[in-house]
Amino acid sequence: MEYTAIRYSLADGIATITLDRPEKMNAFTNTMMAEMIDAFDRIDADDDVRAVIVTGEGRAFCAGADLTPDSGGGPFSSDDPVSDLSDPRVRDGGGMLTLRMFRCTKPVIGAINGAAVGIGATMQLPMDMRLASSTARFGFVFARRGIVPEAASSWFLPKLVGHQQALEWCMTGRVFDAQEALAGGLVRSVHAPEDLIPAATALAREIADNTAPVSVALTRAMLWRLPSAPHPMDAHRIDSRAIYTRSRSGDAAEGISSFLQKRAANYPDRVASQMPGFYPWWDEPQYE
Amino acid sequence: MEYTAIRYSLADGIATITLDRPEKMNAFTNTMMAEMIDAFDRIDADDDVRAVIVTGEGRAFCAGADLTPDSGGGPFSSDDPVSDLSDPRVRDGGGMLTLRMFRCTKPVIGAINGAAVGIGATMQLPMDMRLASSTARFGFVFARRGIVPEAASSWFLPKLVGHQQALEWCMTGRVFDAQEALAGGLVRSVHAPEDLIPAATALAREIADNTAPVSVALTRAMLWRLPSAPHPMDAHRIDSRAIYTRSRSGDAAEGISSFLQKRAANYPDRVASQMPGFYPWWDEPQYE
Amino acid sequence: MEYTAIRYSLADGIATITLDRPEKMNAFTNTMMAEMIDAFDRIDADDDVRAVIVTGEGRAFCAGADLTPDSGGGPFSSDDPVSDLSDPRVRDGGGMLTLRMFRCTKPVIGAINGAAVGIGATMQLPMDMRLASSTARFGFVFARRGIVPEAASSWFLPKLVGHQQALEWCMTGRVFDAQEALAGGLVRSVHAPEDLIPAATALAREIADNTAPVSVALTRAMLWRLPSAPHPMDAHRIDSRAIYTRSRSGDAAEGISSFLQKRAANYPDRVASQMPGFYPWWDEPQYE
Repeated sequence: MEYTAIRYSLADGIATITLDRPEKMNAFTNTMMAEMIDAFDRIDADDDVRAVIVTGEGRAFCAGADLTPDSGGGPFSSDDPVSDLSDPRVRDGGGMLTLRMFRCTKPVIGAINGAAVGIGATMQLPMDMRLASSTARFGFVFARRGIVPEAASSWFLPKLVGHQQALEWCMTGRVFDAQEALAGGLVRSVHAPEDLIPAATALAREIADNTAPVSVALTRAMLWRLPSAPHPMDAHRIDSRAIYTRSRSGDAAEGISSFLQKRAANYPDRVASQMPGFYPWWDEPQYE
Repeated sequence: MEYTAIRYSLADGIATITLDRPEKMNAFTNTMMAEMIDAFDRIDADDDVRAVIVTGEGRAFCAGADLTPDSGGGPFSSDDPVSDLSDPRVRDGGGMLTLRMFRCTKPVIGAINGAAVGIGATMQLPMDMRLASSTARFGFVFARRGIVPEAASSWFLPKLVGHQQALEWCMTGRVFDAQEALAGGLVRSVHAPEDLIPAATALAREIADNTAPVSVALTRAMLWRLPSAPHPMDAHRIDSRAIYTRSRSGDAAEGISSFLQKRAANYPDRVASQMPGFYPWWDEPQYE
Repeated sequence: MEYTAIRYSLADGIATITLDRPEKMNAFTNTMMAEMIDAFDRIDADDDVRAVIVTGEGRAFCAGADLTPDSGGGPFSSDDPVSDLSDPRVRDGGGMLTLRMFRCTKPVIGAINGAAVGIGATMQLPMDMRLASSTARFGFVFARRGIVPEAASSWFLPKLVGHQQALEWCMTGRVFDAQEALAGGLVRSVHAPEDLIPAATALAREIADNTAPVSVALTRAMLWRLPSAPHPMDAHRIDSRAIYTRSRSGDAAEGISSFLQKRAANYPDRVASQMPGFYPWWDEPQYE
């Protein structure tokens, strides 16, 4: 797939997805959605990718859904309405993207370089960590447009910032700056514009240089999925299986011997082909 | 219904419920409970109400349940005990109020003007945002009275302040000041006493002046209810239906044209009569 | 049971569990696990225990699982692998401990005196409150050893620190200091080394001296278990039963009269024998 709305690059284990419609402030289109989903498919299939950075070209991260007629559809397209809301054509494009990110097996780091409004704000939520430029702006502006928070953001946002902050941002629809995003817990750190990509890269490197890929993929699924279980026994069932099988793996042998020898580890196991048999331990639900 | 324990007023889209037993530090009675529930019924039915402020008359917000014999019953009433705890007469009055607030379709803002102890603390939790006067005091004092946190506070409080803070406040039963409430995340901001109502009003205005009523009602239900789902697909199912139908609404047309024309929006759709067909998407559970 | 890996003491209502293998930095063994579980059984059965402090002897809190061959097994034991991962022999020892702590009826306070790595970090999560020495260090290092976060930590950690912080700590596997633990919300306070046990003791005293034991036991179960329910009605069902029965108890009579008389309360009801009939309101799930 040739990309026209994003760029994709891979260097030294770190994949970078760059939203690349700077003349439109990287406004989100169906094309951008499809290309991002394709990029995440590529990332999961490529064992050379150890971490992912998502950022925007130019002044904006993503200024929201492209509302212009030539944008290739989108949430405001004028196609004939379907009567049955369980029809897959009803599905929100932002949600198709965030659910794909949710299934990703690699760490995803948002480097929010500028305005991030609407889907530009909600697409960040299934990322694992978010860093902001001091010039970034955020807005869950949906209630100011007569619509609602989308992209499954009602599920994600309170898990990141708590209910009170999530409600205030979504009920007021205000646009707020990087410091408010930091104080509220949406981003983990704020950086001078020129320091943003170096800081995101350093965090990606910290993961890529020190951890076992299969461990990180399991950790990602466990931390996003198991807290929703009604009882910690659900986590104990999964992590017992994981500890039991991974502690007998080449990764654990290498992890321990490299630690005792105080040298960099070289983990043998691969995510694309060597996830343990109990993974995935869930059935991915379908739209209905 | 004539109110005797509260006052109710409506001005410029903002309803204010004032707990009004200042000589009793606004202690909670069955009468106050019934009147507050009635006020929320009125609020939901009245499309002129765009936001709600709850505050207290005099020095206190609400000093807890009225334990005096002439208080009209309450949790410590001496009626004959029922043997079956699924009997509705067993229901905690504080919980009947907080479950009613939970179903409210308008934003609810707490303006905590003074002592807020026991039910005075727990009744705040289903509100969307809480502002405190610097003179406010809070106390989840139940364990110091031989009882337990009520009003469904065990469900709400950890969602607002995390488990560690919730456990400390409820296990010690300590009374704490506005700064501790702010540091712990219970209130979003602390104000000089004379600035409290102006600040709460400004926040209510920010919502009322900029957002679509149906959008806010949907947002409130989504953000309180969908995070409990086991998977973000549950949120995607609902927000897809909401985006699909709302983006074809008069509200969305007005939201976009007012945005492009940089003018105030005048949203046509009404909460009392025009919520979309898929709302509510849940069955409200019964006491049993 | 004679303890060899821990010490257990009880003074003035406060039980202290001290991890006691200082020459091994209190590394976790199967023996330590069994002794800690035994100590929690003792704590629940002993009405003289009103609060629990867990700390470490010497410079470390717990430096992780003991990986040496003479450690009595542990997660990396070389026994014959079982083929069926639902076999109880697969169970992670850290999880058996944290699930036991989860069921504890007394407040558990962690006094983290030094390095707390691996199981030394995850065993803290089902404790109710954590205080750290300024010399403490923390590390969810599992991904750096080729394994995964265990002890049901994927269920607990996001409830304490939110998803973003939990993911960063577990994906990087970094070791971090007490200030980072405080900023992230893992510990509630940081103290000079000599002030750690006094501060933990003061917090335990605040509970023991002021609250009713049955109230605290119910509060602990409610706050850990009910937030996972899909709707606040689930909490309302339990707290209605609790308020109804406890408000008719000797504890409530003593709580109110001691409050009105401004004297210390002397609550009559006992946890080991007088929990209300609706407790426990759940079936504890089994490993499978």
